Amino acid sequence: MAGEEFGTGNFNPNDTKRKTITCKAAVAYGPGEPFVLERVLVHPPHRMEVRIKILFTSICHTDLSAWQGKNEAQRAYPRIFGHEASGIVESVGEGVRDMKEGDFVVPIFNGECEECKYCKCEKTNKCERFGVDGEKKVMDCDGATRFSTMDGKPIFHFLNTSTFTEYTVINSACVVKIHPNGDRDLKPYIKTLTLLSCGISTGVGAAWNTANVHSGSTVAVFGLGAVGLAVAEGARARGASKIIGVDINSDKFIKGRGMGITDFVNPRDDERAVYERIREMTGGGVDYSFECAGNLNVLRDAFLSAHEGWGLTVLLGIHSSPNLLPIHPMELFQGRRMVGSVFGGFKGKTQLPHFAQECMNGVVKLDDFITHELPVEEINEAFDLLVAGKSLRCLLHF
Amino acid sequence: MAGEEFGTGNFNPNDTKRKTITCKAAVAYGPGEPFVLERVLVHPPHRMEVRIKILFTSICHTDLSAWQGKNEAQRAYPRIFGHEASGIVESVGEGVRDMKEGDFVVPIFNGECEECKYCKCEKTNKCERFGVDGEKKVMDCDGATRFSTMDGKPIFHFLNTSTFTEYTVINSACVVKIHPNGDRDLKPYIKTLTLLSCGISTGVGAAWNTANVHSGSTVAVFGLGAVGLAVAEGARARGASKIIGVDINSDKFIKGRGMGITDFVNPRDDERAVYERIREMTGGGVDYSFECAGNLNVLRDAFLSAHEGWGLTVLLGIHSSPNLLPIHPMELFQGRRMVGSVFGGFKGKTQLPHFAQECMNGVVKLDDFITHELPVEEINEAFDLLVAGKSLRCLLHF
Repeated sequence: MAGEEFGTGNFNPNDTKRKTITCKAAVAYGPGEPFVLERVLVHPPHRMEVRIKILFTSICHTDLSAWQGKNEAQRAYPRIFGHEASGIVESVGEGVRDMKEGDFVVPIFNGECEECKYCKCEKTNKCERFGVDGEKKVMDCDGATRFSTMDGKPIFHFLNTSTFTEYTVINSACVVKIHPNGDRDLKPYIKTLTLLSCGISTGVGAAWNTANVHSGSTVAVFGLGAVGLAVAEGARARGASKIIGVDINSDKFIKGRGMGITDFVNPRDDERAVYERIREMTGGGVDYSFECAGNLNVLRDAFLSAHEGWGLTVLLGIHSSPNLLPIHPMELFQGRRMVGSVFGGFKGKTQLPHFAQECMNGVVKLDDFITHELPVEEINEAFDLLVAGKSLRCLLHF
Repeated sequence: MAGEEFGTGNFNPNDTKRKTITCKAAVAYGPGEPFVLERVLVHPPHRMEVRIKILFTSICHTDLSAWQGKNEAQRAYPRIFGHEASGIVESVGEGVRDMKEGDFVVPIFNGECEECKYCKCEKTNKCERFGVDGEKKVMDCDGATRFSTMDGKPIFHFLNTSTFTEYTVINSACVVKIHPNGDRDLKPYIKTLTLLSCGISTGVGAAWNTANVHSGSTVAVFGLGAVGLAVAEGARARGASKIIGVDINSDKFIKGRGMGITDFVNPRDDERAVYERIREMTGGGVDYSFECAGNLNVLRDAFLSAHEGWGLTVLLGIHSSPNLLPIHPMELFQGRRMVGSVFGGFKGKTQLPHFAQECMNGVVKLDDFITHELPVEEINEAFDLLVAGKSLRCLLHF
């Protein structure tokens, strides 16, 4: 039994297939209001959809800002947040060919339909139907939800995924079967593979796919949360010779050493601009800089830290301020470039299975990213840890 | 005799070598003041310098704004402007090995010393010593000028070149010997090869080197001056399937048809935003857009005209406004990219000889870019033509 293989002995798809499941979920009823742990109904998957039993879910800053309702247009309650998770397929809807009950999968908020013009273009990992859309709150095929309260009111979906629940329903374009060859025992890796669902792929992929960091190069990472540290780990795996971490919280530096960071800069330690210090440390600037802070002043420092002529700045941070890029057009003639990176440039369904193999082979080391583990009942405490900057990733289990 | 070969029968380097030459030049004595045609002294070339007899020079917008003194920090008078030209080597200073008397050459304002870290990097055509520097006004090796008035006062240099003069002295890093194999009669091509010195290389190179326009792709060019039309011609030569020209002067469209432009958009013809019209014409946006107008509103239109996911906007226009990029950082996550292009990304000494061969082979057609030809005595009229938008390139001859 697939369920037993993953240590979820009480799971038997034959009992639940084609039926509505009643299970536990953490539901948000309003902006910033504590999550309510309650029983919800999870309806069977429709055509091309997959119902997944979540093994682990974690929390990322995108959940935090969405839960806080920072963007009014994106508010929708009640809602099940969460997008970084791992699980096993409970059942699949009509037409799903690449997954079956018992498969180990990770949800991806940035889907891959494999049919649109973007999915067919090798230059982008955007997807026309299942791209990142904070306003989307229902399933594609019928505009309805697969979740409802026990008294039948719809509960909205989030970021194509919704993982703060024991069971979820996701379009198959947003579910990746990990380890398709099945020749390896996945059990020891399940917790770390959970992080491939969002943060680790976003960070490592920004270094590998978007920037294409090369061996011997120099790198600066601005903002040492989980994503920034994953950038550093990706750059380390690529053989970067110098990886400078920048953060105003010096505690982050201790963690960073284990993830490839060779040098630290705390902007508050020195009156000089950070970019001047980095240029001095690198003989003119780094080959690649990564903005993982979502702050425009940091973005300008990251841009000016990159070397004239070829330096590339990769944007990963979410900028909620309405202010525009603090760069003058003539500054682009100095040869510095800037690009955005979504989900690390990974085409999820196509590329994540291979990336998972590389993680299991130890090409990148992910264990240290999991700093906490709590039962889902303590989700509110897990959010507190994230807000306080105390956790990188806190795994919640059901 | 080299001089005779190029139809300059009165030129004999044996008469002038190592001597100060007295010749005609168009000297600027103050911002926007009419050029004065007068006799000046041109001293012999120092180590690694080349003295050139100018055959043709033309005028570009950079000359115009520098002559007008728009940037106060860059003002220096008296000065010999001009940077787009062709000529023959009169004599070379000590150490110059790649050129000799009688060679046909074009000056390049963006030099290539072949020794600095930029010149050794294939990702950039920047040069540490001989890059674009509007404030530079003297020669590198001794901080002095090679020009002086008849009564001995120094006349300043401009953009590493200074070509509004019968003879000029330029560092060899900023002089490219065209046609090094010498197996072809250059005479029929001299006028058009003059344009490789700046505008044509800037435009065609932006399409070829910076954007790497591919066959079958779609392109939009904003601003149809000589540089914009050269972009279009470069894109045509690469096999772009649709090349949309954008300009508020509909007269430019007639010229543009001969240079590959397949579709025209006049922003004043329609209330809709230009980018909306271009998206409609191309099923979502062009693969490559080029900003050749130096206007921030145009820049934003060019950016939004590029296709989500992979569209690239190349900046060529000079932006004198202090305003910053009108782009929100989150817009970069849609996968549109923006880069600046200087001298079309060409490493001048390394790549221009091959580009010249391609021009002579008819890969790009340059004849139509020369719309006027005047004796240097009429340089003030030539400037009037450029200001009025009546000329693409006006060749001045001595």
